[in-house]
Amino acid sequence: MALYVQKYGGTSVGTTERIEAVADKLKAFHDEGHQLVVAVSAMSGETNRLIGLAGAITDNPSPREMDVLVSTGEQVTIALLAMALEKRGITARSFTGWQVGIKTNRAYMKARIEDIETDKMRDVLNSGGIVIVAGFQGVDDDNNITTLGRGGSDTTGVALAAALNADECQIYTDVDGVYTTDPRVVPAARRMDTVTFEEMLEMASLGSKVLQIRSVEFAGKYKVPLRVLSSFKGGNGTLITTEENNSVENPVISGIAFNRDEAKVTVQGVPDIPGVASRILVPVSDANIEVDMIVQNVSEDGSTDFTFTVHRNDYQKALKLLTELAEELNAKGVNGTDDICKVSLVGVGMRSHAGVASKMFKTLADESINILAITTSEIKISVVIEEKYLELAVRALHTAFGLDAEVSEEQ
Amino acid sequence: MALYVQKYGGTSVGTTERIEAVADKLKAFHDEGHQLVVAVSAMSGETNRLIGLAGAITDNPSPREMDVLVSTGEQVTIALLAMALEKRGITARSFTGWQVGIKTNRAYMKARIEDIETDKMRDVLNSGGIVIVAGFQGVDDDNNITTLGRGGSDTTGVALAAALNADECQIYTDVDGVYTTDPRVVPAARRMDTVTFEEMLEMASLGSKVLQIRSVEFAGKYKVPLRVLSSFKGGNGTLITTEENNSVENPVISGIAFNRDEAKVTVQGVPDIPGVASRILVPVSDANIEVDMIVQNVSEDGSTDFTFTVHRNDYQKALKLLTELAEELNAKGVNGTDDICKVSLVGVGMRSHAGVASKMFKTLADESINILAITTSEIKISVVIEEKYLELAVRALHTAFGLDAEVSEEQ
Repeated sequence: MALYVQKYGGTSVGTTERIEAVADKLKAFHDEGHQLVVAVSAMSGETNRLIGLAGAITDNPSPREMDVLVSTGEQVTIALLAMALEKRGITARSFTGWQVGIKTNRAYMKARIEDIETDKMRDVLNSGGIVIVAGFQGVDDDNNITTLGRGGSDTTGVALAAALNADECQIYTDVDGVYTTDPRVVPAARRMDTVTFEEMLEMASLGSKVLQIRSVEFAGKYKVPLRVLSSFKGGNGTLITTEENNSVENPVISGIAFNRDEAKVTVQGVPDIPGVASRILVPVSDANIEVDMIVQNVSEDGSTDFTFTVHRNDYQKALKLLTELAEELNAKGVNGTDDICKVSLVGVGMRSHAGVASKMFKTLADESINILAITTSEIKISVVIEEKYLELAVRALHTAFGLDAEVSEEQ
Repeated sequence: MALYVQKYGGTSVGTTERIEAVADKLKAFHDEGHQLVVAVSAMSGETNRLIGLAGAITDNPSPREMDVLVSTGEQVTIALLAMALEKRGITARSFTGWQVGIKTNRAYMKARIEDIETDKMRDVLNSGGIVIVAGFQGVDDDNNITTLGRGGSDTTGVALAAALNADECQIYTDVDGVYTTDPRVVPAARRMDTVTFEEMLEMASLGSKVLQIRSVEFAGKYKVPLRVLSSFKGGNGTLITTEENNSVENPVISGIAFNRDEAKVTVQGVPDIPGVASRILVPVSDANIEVDMIVQNVSEDGSTDFTFTVHRNDYQKALKLLTELAEELNAKGVNGTDDICKVSLVGVGMRSHAGVASKMFKTLADESINILAITTSEIKISVVIEEKYLELAVRALHTAFGLDAEVSEEQ
């Protein structure tokens, strides 16, 4: 008997028929004697429907009220799934974020989970019932409803698994595992049986959409074994572990991630004095804009160009903010662009293999792709390039690093 | 400057355009310096959509999960209305039932409000903001979400007005006031400028759908001045007061209510011994079935036929329950029907006028309508008749008691 936390995404619960199919699946696990806590997303399309209602009223809705609005989506799903389980003779109890004490900070629309109460869930589990929890949502200390941002239901699942010390957190989704890269871009992409947290974290942070990054961070931090599986196909999916795969065939690069949601902002010609970076980045952070890559070049006249990348949704906001700050910073100007993307090689094997970066740059150069910025970490190399080269770059790198699946002639 | 609690029903907030129209109306009141607390229903159609989702999964959903499900409807409205107000430069803050501490008992789907916290609402009002509260919902002592049953948003409005000691509770709806009877049945029906709580209570309890009965009880008990107005037309609507209208023209009968949602159950031939009524009605009450009229006839053999009426929705449940109880009660049998209706004359003027009942019975007899049961109170006479005679009975009584509007030839 194990305690599993399972998370079902919007597509998996997209219709009442699919909710019934999830209930069948849960019943099978329950019949095997497992304890189940289930985190669910809104039915697919529902969150967008709600956002559309808000959009019909205002272009600039209050984040607090947006969270009140969109959090209803998951609340609908938990009730329907509990009903479907009860119809199958299984005791089930639904809980919204606040009902199960998912405490977050007050960063509306991108809140972070700070604490989860487990008493009520334990009561239901101990009496043989299944616990259904609304993903994506929580409540702050003042009882304001918060949401964790898009994909936040994954984080809910992992946080529940950590709080309950579950045996495994299983993320059911519409893909059957983690691939070496997006199969829509590279048809030869391969599903990985296992991937390390570090790699997965880099993949997620770099735009691989299988799991939300915070869910991976959470899982790594609390050592929650995390598995990505398909709601529709069978299979064991991909297990995300702390174990490195030490087999001889272990490739240097595990996967290639990419991200189109990029924009870059450059503050030109600011005096190169101590503190200038924080004078630029603190206001950005205060405006709740997350900064990704940061590049600073010193020019010969003692001034510096300071470039950073942000999510494309925050681009206009960041540009406006820095344009307002430019005078105060004695900057020569502010510019930016949002037709860029980021492509990253990820792999724990990089640690023991030199030459990955040079092979990457050569591969891109052979395709005449210009690199606009570079960052590296111990297990990752990222480059910013023009968005139009994205597919070309990913396919060339996937082949160059030996990631392509061996396709038999029969297929 | 006054403190108004206003309630807007599902039709009034049925689209984002109508929500914006409500925001315009609220802005006008706010600009005049009034303090506003607004209770809203789900957008029209939304509650039925949610019930339809549940119905696609099960015919017998758990009441607890139904409340989790349907309470999302009002939560959507509060967020959208708050956004519409903020767009107009007004501070607005939405609250779900649990957020504003609307404590109820645990009678899912027909819970009763026990307490409301006012601190958070006062804070918003004192800072010049408008408070938006989800109608129809609350939370029990164990933080389970509850709903007050259909029409419960009226009760929310009145309970908020009572808790806040508001100057008036204004129920905005799709009719422009309380009429002498339903104008769809009697085109000559007249809007009343005022009606007493007692009369309104009888009208509501007898099926007049303008206000939910519990909202009128609440308003009467806490002396909350209650006004029914149209969201769409202008006008002063109908004020429900503690004052009787003592003018000479005061009619003996104020209005005629009727109710199609009736069913009757008869337990035949139970021994006529002390306690038999409670042995029948306590299990019915325990099953959360509300009993309306009760008629007991003693027959000559020492047994009695015991008849009561219930809401038509509870008919099958009541019939099944009593069929199971019949043996234990030594009853000869149980039967019932749901093709009946109730027609009632209401008026505080009855107190000082004899002959109302006999005039009523004669009017019905003249139309050859058979009376199946009668109950009376100080200001009301109700008869149960076959449903097919409903319109005929109401029109004949409306004319006989002088309630018809004077229609000018031009109209």
